[in-house]
Amino acid sequence: MKWLKAAAEEIITGIKSCFEELNMNEVEQLIQLLLDAKDKKIFIVGMGRSGFVARAFALRLMNLGFNVYFLGETITPAAEKGDILIAISGTGATKMVLTASTAAKEIGATVIALTSFSESPLGQTADLIVTIKGRTKTGWPKEEDYLARQIIGEREPLTPLGSVFENNCMVFLDSLVVELMHRMGRTEADLKRRHATIE
Amino acid sequence: MKWLKAAAEEIITGIKSCFEELNMNEVEQLIQLLLDAKDKKIFIVGMGRSGFVARAFALRLMNLGFNVYFLGETITPAAEKGDILIAISGTGATKMVLTASTAAKEIGATVIALTSFSESPLGQTADLIVTIKGRTKTGWPKEEDYLARQIIGEREPLTPLGSVFENNCMVFLDSLVVELMHRMGRTEADLKRRHATIE
Amino acid sequence: MKWLKAAAEEIITGIKSCFEELNMNEVEQLIQLLLDAKDKKIFIVGMGRSGFVARAFALRLMNLGFNVYFLGETITPAAEKGDILIAISGTGATKMVLTASTAAKEIGATVIALTSFSESPLGQTADLIVTIKGRTKTGWPKEEDYLARQIIGEREPLTPLGSVFENNCMVFLDSLVVELMHRMGRTEADLKRRHATIE
Amino acid sequence: MKWLKAAAEEIITGIKSCFEELNMNEVEQLIQLLLDAKDKKIFIVGMGRSGFVARAFALRLMNLGFNVYFLGETITPAAEKGDILIAISGTGATKMVLTASTAAKEIGATVIALTSFSESPLGQTADLIVTIKGRTKTGWPKEEDYLARQIIGEREPLTPLGSVFENNCMVFLDSLVVELMHRMGRTEADLKRRHATIE
Repeated sequence: MKWLKAAAEEIITGIKSCFEELNMNEVEQLIQLLLDAKDKKIFIVGMGRSGFVARAFALRLMNLGFNVYFLGETITPAAEKGDILIAISGTGATKMVLTASTAAKEIGATVIALTSFSESPLGQTADLIVTIKGRTKTGWPKEEDYLARQIIGEREPLTPLGSVFENNCMVFLDSLVVELMHRMGRTEADLKRRHATIE
Repeated sequence: MKWLKAAAEEIITGIKSCFEELNMNEVEQLIQLLLDAKDKKIFIVGMGRSGFVARAFALRLMNLGFNVYFLGETITPAAEKGDILIAISGTGATKMVLTASTAAKEIGATVIALTSFSESPLGQTADLIVTIKGRTKTGWPKEEDYLARQIIGEREPLTPLGSVFENNCMVFLDSLVVELMHRMGRTEADLKRRHATIE
Repeated sequence: MKWLKAAAEEIITGIKSCFEELNMNEVEQLIQLLLDAKDKKIFIVGMGRSGFVARAFALRLMNLGFNVYFLGETITPAAEKGDILIAISGTGATKMVLTASTAAKEIGATVIALTSFSESPLGQTADLIVTIKGRTKTGWPKEEDYLARQIIGEREPLTPLGSVFENNCMVFLDSLVVELMHRMGRTEADLKRRHATIE
Repeated sequence: MKWLKAAAEEIITGIKSCFEELNMNEVEQLIQLLLDAKDKKIFIVGMGRSGFVARAFALRLMNLGFNVYFLGETITPAAEKGDILIAISGTGATKMVLTASTAAKEIGATVIALTSFSESPLGQTADLIVTIKGRTKTGWPKEEDYLARQIIGEREPLTPLGSVFENNCMVFLDSLVVELMHRMGRTEADLKRRHATIE
């Protein structure tokens, strides 16, 4: 289990490092936008594993009482001016996420990007960027193949592809949920009351 | 294209036959339950292709302004006493649908079954059955293998497995949406206003 | 039930009309591309209700033994040169579908569009268009609001938004499945053997 | 950000504790079952947030070249004798997961449970249990309301509901992926080659 243990340690170190480098101004702005959105709709978008982390967060926002939707699911209603789109993409270059973010901007929604690269296309589209550390500290690559360069560049992490970002993002968003609970005066019992009863 | 044309004719004949045999008392009760559910939550469940037909209906209920959720999607909240579960299963024997329906009954929700077999386990669980004609007129089989018996029994349809039920159900539910629009005084513009704008 | 019955008749008439106007050359090319794709991957994409119809078709392609994936679901692998993307959009203007189709083209995949409008952006991207009749016979609108014009223009259908296309597409694809079964020498028992056993 | 920071620390401490208490015999058996399953089908099931963690793992198994499916998604084929079902549920009492696991057992599939409670219904159904630490060390409750008792019993965690299990499970499975990569001789480039190219 040498590799399992080494990977676990690396993931934990990565999460710690992510929180150390977190820009609390960005986080505070995110919290304010969410607290101000009680009467608005919040849309969440992400592809692949970032999308699963995004859905785990969307579920907790539902538990907290927000009017929240994951883009592409059945009952997603119209996004309107003043609504919020939270777009999650480590590279900030996921095409489907960009398409959704651009559409949201045109509608007049506020786009919040959770990404490792503020200079990425997604970062450039967003009204607010919350930088979540991913697998590299280097700037967003101009080159076609983002991952290829990382592998050549510096020592690659043990976990493949976007895993560093995804784990960091999962723990960041679950910590954010606790902060939101306290700011909103919500107890676990409040969240449980809204939790799915048919599973 | 001999088979394509033959199949199309058979599907169309099947849909006509489904509407001819529709029990309008059942449909009227379904409509009343839906119209009375404006302040309640409506949950929809179905597996496989029945689940896709179910989702197409859930999307239209959202367009109509209902508080509707497809079971298993991210933001599905707690079902509570007085809420409605619409369970769609041709055979009425889909295990996951039965598990959900039984859980809904225990919570005190009203279970509406769309199925071809009123004697099926799902039919026996439901508060209201709306019978949608499927591939056979025979009673719900006691035998293990429902489909096997059909194939031996009478001439099987050209379309495989549950396709007859699924097409009939799709057209029935889309027709029901038009009836609901008129009873609720909703225009297409009303539905469009709630329709997803980020796709 | 006046409106339910009127809507059912209109949907049935619409399906018949769709098959009458079907371009059998387009359908034959579609069938050949599918039959030639046994060793390739087939990707399906669609949003909203078109996406549910698309998924119902994807499930049947799986039943038939194809190597098929619905874009955005968990285990979707890499699309490669020579693979096929089937893109389903009534208007041919759904942004997420266009983004996926453009990406598929860049990879060297063959894009097949099922749409009502051959002149639409999706139609212009596709290698093969299979025209499925939707709610209007007029050309693809230059104007921003496709639906708005329809309502003003000619008598609108009873079913709202994309319902005409979605029902036509569902019955077309289920008829296509029967044609494929016969061309591939597959029986219902073959399809059942691949059908989900845990539901 | 007091609560965000406290929650992050608690989650990290929880992950460490999860790995310290991990039963490496269980993990080794899990790895052997997976390595022996190269010619079989692996099905994954989970509801809610456990389901999103489960999907993130399923995607990586696909990247690794396994024949893997997430239950309930469109193209899920028949499970057969000798196939594997990995069922993820913190409480081990999620009804839909139990229904799937029982169906899998009847088919003759091997059921692997990832749960915090070996005595739970899921634990009793499973052929192999991999215990993933959740929010409590106490035994699986006989009482109806599992969560209620926890809150009364010992100090509850800052993160609500199943979050402790979900974060632990996410990091455990991502570490397992790295162990599998090395045992299978797979590089990141191998995984990337199978990674979705249309996103």
